[in-house]
Amino acid sequence: MTAAAPRRRGRPSRTDSADLPAARDRILTAAREEFSERGYEKTSVRGIAKTAGVDSALVHHYYGTKEQVFEASIEVAIGPLLSAPGSITEGPLDGVGERLARFFFGVWENPATRKALLAIVRSAVNNEVAAGVFRRLISAQLLRRIADRLDRPDAELRAELAAAQLVGIAMLRYVIRVEPLASATPEQIIERVSPVIQTHLTAP
Amino acid sequence: MTAAAPRRRGRPSRTDSADLPAARDRILTAAREEFSERGYEKTSVRGIAKTAGVDSALVHHYYGTKEQVFEASIEVAIGPLLSAPGSITEGPLDGVGERLARFFFGVWENPATRKALLAIVRSAVNNEVAAGVFRRLISAQLLRRIADRLDRPDAELRAELAAAQLVGIAMLRYVIRVEPLASATPEQIIERVSPVIQTHLTAP
Repeated sequence: MTAAAPRRRGRPSRTDSADLPAARDRILTAAREEFSERGYEKTSVRGIAKTAGVDSALVHHYYGTKEQVFEASIEVAIGPLLSAPGSITEGPLDGVGERLARFFFGVWENPATRKALLAIVRSAVNNEVAAGVFRRLISAQLLRRIADRLDRPDAELRAELAAAQLVGIAMLRYVIRVEPLASATPEQIIERVSPVIQTHLTAP
Repeated sequence: MTAAAPRRRGRPSRTDSADLPAARDRILTAAREEFSERGYEKTSVRGIAKTAGVDSALVHHYYGTKEQVFEASIEVAIGPLLSAPGSITEGPLDGVGERLARFFFGVWENPATRKALLAIVRSAVNNEVAAGVFRRLISAQLLRRIADRLDRPDAELRAELAAAQLVGIAMLRYVIRVEPLASATPEQIIERVSPVIQTHLTAP
């Protein structure tokens, strides 16, 4: 196996052996583990390949550069977050603040998703490249879709200020763990924060 | 010079030589540099001592453990932030949201303070001990003072949700650099965010 040109999540060519799709999944699982435990900077394509039991060239073949492997692995990790905007922005705009807050804390209160999100936040805070990947994903897939639904000239800034309220609560509650915020119930927070999100998104 | 029991920011005893107060300042400057560049985990008391040109024992003598050195160094770095509540909470509660927002972005828009704050955020996100130090400082010195001024049973939670809005904007604007938030003027952000902060702090 020699390194082909990077093809993100490409299908194996006819010359690949039959178990390569399984290898492709193993690589993605290994990448999530490595990035999650070591952070972006300390993770290497070689280490991911070793954990997955494949050659480094195969990692490059399927996913391209380390940055692209990282992007693929966080797309999987925050998949529920990225696929959410449809269900949140459907229905009347009146309740969009509460739907967004409820969804956000649903994701963070789930221990498995929380662990993945914390790992991504750590990588993004520590490394410019990881921050860039995170920025592209949340801008293109999450914030822009919410903004599209609002259909206003300042919609993107509105979506970002609303997201900032939620991101800040995640920082203080799950990372820094300031009290009483860290011990408040999700419902207590949703009740207080939904009107604020709503104001950011839809107030005149 | 032998290692005495840790005395945080204690005065040199009569047996210390005359240049020790200068050494104490050098240690604090070295600690800020080391923690800022390497983060909490990779910084050692030995490394700080070496940068300051003193013996490790002298670092322990003045500041105690690595955790205590870190606390002393971030107290200096975020001194303006910690001494702010007085001027913010003086005057009518009506304008407290805007005063808090204006102050917060004043600190973050100053390149020197921003660099120190980014370093602290990175350490706090990556390390539990550093997160604990940061939590104690902002809880005891910043959030509680604002809460005291509000004089309500849920004042602490209010102060934290208001702080979360500002912290989230700092994350998205200065760390992840999402657009258009990253390029908006401070005044544009202050104008939109002040009423939200005000609502968190004082709405019925």
